[in-house]
Amino acid sequence: MHWYEVTSPEAMDTPALLVYPDRVKENIRQAILMAGHSNNLRPHVKTHKIKEVSQLLLEQGIQKFKCATIAEAEMLGMIDAPDVLIAHQLTGPKAARLLALMEHYPQTHFATLVDNLHTATILSATFSAAGKSIDLYMDLNVGMNRSGIIPEKGLDLFKACLALPSIQLVGLHVYDGHLRDTDLDIRKQRSNEAFERATALAAEIYAATGKTMKMVAGGSPSFPTHTHRKGVEFSPGTFVFWDWGYKHIVPDEPFEYAALVATSIISIMEDNRLCLDLGHKAIAAENPLPRVHFLNAPEAVPVSQSEEHMVVQVADSSQYQVGELWYGVPVHICPTVALFAEAQVIQDHENIQQWQVIARNRKINI
Amino acid sequence: MHWYEVTSPEAMDTPALLVYPDRVKENIRQAILMAGHSNNLRPHVKTHKIKEVSQLLLEQGIQKFKCATIAEAEMLGMIDAPDVLIAHQLTGPKAARLLALMEHYPQTHFATLVDNLHTATILSATFSAAGKSIDLYMDLNVGMNRSGIIPEKGLDLFKACLALPSIQLVGLHVYDGHLRDTDLDIRKQRSNEAFERATALAAEIYAATGKTMKMVAGGSPSFPTHTHRKGVEFSPGTFVFWDWGYKHIVPDEPFEYAALVATSIISIMEDNRLCLDLGHKAIAAENPLPRVHFLNAPEAVPVSQSEEHMVVQVADSSQYQVGELWYGVPVHICPTVALFAEAQVIQDHENIQQWQVIARNRKINI
Repeated sequence: MHWYEVTSPEAMDTPALLVYPDRVKENIRQAILMAGHSNNLRPHVKTHKIKEVSQLLLEQGIQKFKCATIAEAEMLGMIDAPDVLIAHQLTGPKAARLLALMEHYPQTHFATLVDNLHTATILSATFSAAGKSIDLYMDLNVGMNRSGIIPEKGLDLFKACLALPSIQLVGLHVYDGHLRDTDLDIRKQRSNEAFERATALAAEIYAATGKTMKMVAGGSPSFPTHTHRKGVEFSPGTFVFWDWGYKHIVPDEPFEYAALVATSIISIMEDNRLCLDLGHKAIAAENPLPRVHFLNAPEAVPVSQSEEHMVVQVADSSQYQVGELWYGVPVHICPTVALFAEAQVIQDHENIQQWQVIARNRKINI
Repeated sequence: MHWYEVTSPEAMDTPALLVYPDRVKENIRQAILMAGHSNNLRPHVKTHKIKEVSQLLLEQGIQKFKCATIAEAEMLGMIDAPDVLIAHQLTGPKAARLLALMEHYPQTHFATLVDNLHTATILSATFSAAGKSIDLYMDLNVGMNRSGIIPEKGLDLFKACLALPSIQLVGLHVYDGHLRDTDLDIRKQRSNEAFERATALAAEIYAATGKTMKMVAGGSPSFPTHTHRKGVEFSPGTFVFWDWGYKHIVPDEPFEYAALVATSIISIMEDNRLCLDLGHKAIAAENPLPRVHFLNAPEAVPVSQSEEHMVVQVADSSQYQVGELWYGVPVHICPTVALFAEAQVIQDHENIQQWQVIARNRKINI
């Protein structure tokens, strides 16, 4: 029996998200080995959005977490995670929601990002009015070109923020999602060039103000390019579950698939095509087809997809049965997880329980 | 003030799904006009997955519904919808779930599809064992090449099903999602050719067995190609909300946008780029970029997207403010809706309430 198979495939409702906690634990162990110590890790929870998986991280010594939404932050508050960085620019009602989070989950230290004075001013006003204060990280654009201030402008923003009450800039957020070179040497070289701009800013800030910046760097692909740096927290997310995309983009990393999608054959065409109940409402679709590869049907090639259907090509469709269960490795697991309300937990080939994907909603209580 | 604007944009948390019920009602009215009578319509609820929108359909006289999941069927049971066709091939535990639905929601008549004898046999056994019976529609492949039996093989399947207890084949399901020609004349001609294969099968079945088949045909793009047919139910879904994709693929149809996504500017780059909080976890991503167009910023061009971020290009980024609210028309509204736990209901520019997207989970109670 292959590692991924369940003993009663006919009892599995599909499409389903399968999570294998033994393999999740091993991925966490490997990440801590790479990081040198659990204290150097600040894993991003956007991949799993699951309380029980966050708990597995805590149990192996992880104290610090990164997240992208207020709901993900609240999930971490619910399990008394010690330290949470919301790595997203908060606008609109989110400053007030962050304040409410701090008040409702006093065991957890929350912080967030800024890359502009407008947002810093709103956070300052919100927290001042409540007689509280908030730690901030300056979001740096070191080449991703998505959000963040360019490091060379960072000192001015830092000084402007010094004048605002109730906020403290305590660190730099150096997200380098643009580093996806398969060749590790090239990835390391580009990482060093990008990170140098962040360390230069940290030195400028120290020279000008005497303040030392915490450094949070990297995602899953750039993780191995940072591990030699001292005093830096690494923030990969995908490693807990891993996926086909990263397995093939960064084959040097030691992680194994720990989450799959289960799907059934629902229709068999006359020729060499089958239909699975794996539409783009059940698997992340931002990449072109194939968006999934099947462990027990590696020859099957996805050829078209709609909301609840995936058509795949096979050599001879008469070799297959309607109702058969297939196990798929998503190309991108993070947004795939967010398409499911719950995960089916598989241990020793048994579906032992369900874990809610509690932070797939953008609001839990607050 | 434009029709889509809310009076307190700073109070809108983003990303958000906005639904405009006055416009939904008008789209329903237009669909009934096209169909000739509400009794000729069997709208697909996969687009909205919202109980309150199903209720708006009921209020305008719609009695029959189509859906793709057991959860969508249960949502319809919860509002005592008279007639529900689950237009999906049920495998695994779903036959038992369908039986449970029938027992829990006796006011609603449920039916489903088959395209093969294996599935028919399982449904027959499940319903026989419970002393119940179930109406089935034969799913036909008239060119979509996704699921369904080719009509020329339909009579054999019909006869084989006659021998099975507790199932009755009462109709033909003729889904023609492959018909997306912008030219209405070409769409009509191709529709006639495809539909002719279904009517030929209905005639064969009548000649062989004396049974008359109900006919359920079409989606939103093929809707106007069927409206002249007598005794056929039309099953569009997207018309309730409409979207950029269909507005431009089938410009002959009279529907207007009745659901949008709201997003905020969260970061402004030095050059001519902005970042919005509209990642592919908040807007359907199975199409290439652009996956959205902005009503109040039509010049903005989406250039990249990640899970919680969208980078757009503009002529001069200094003309914009962090925190600004933008209103986006999704290219594909159906899977976009499924990314939100709730819809913000906008009436007379006010956010008057929230509607749960109750059937975005694949299970409600059953």
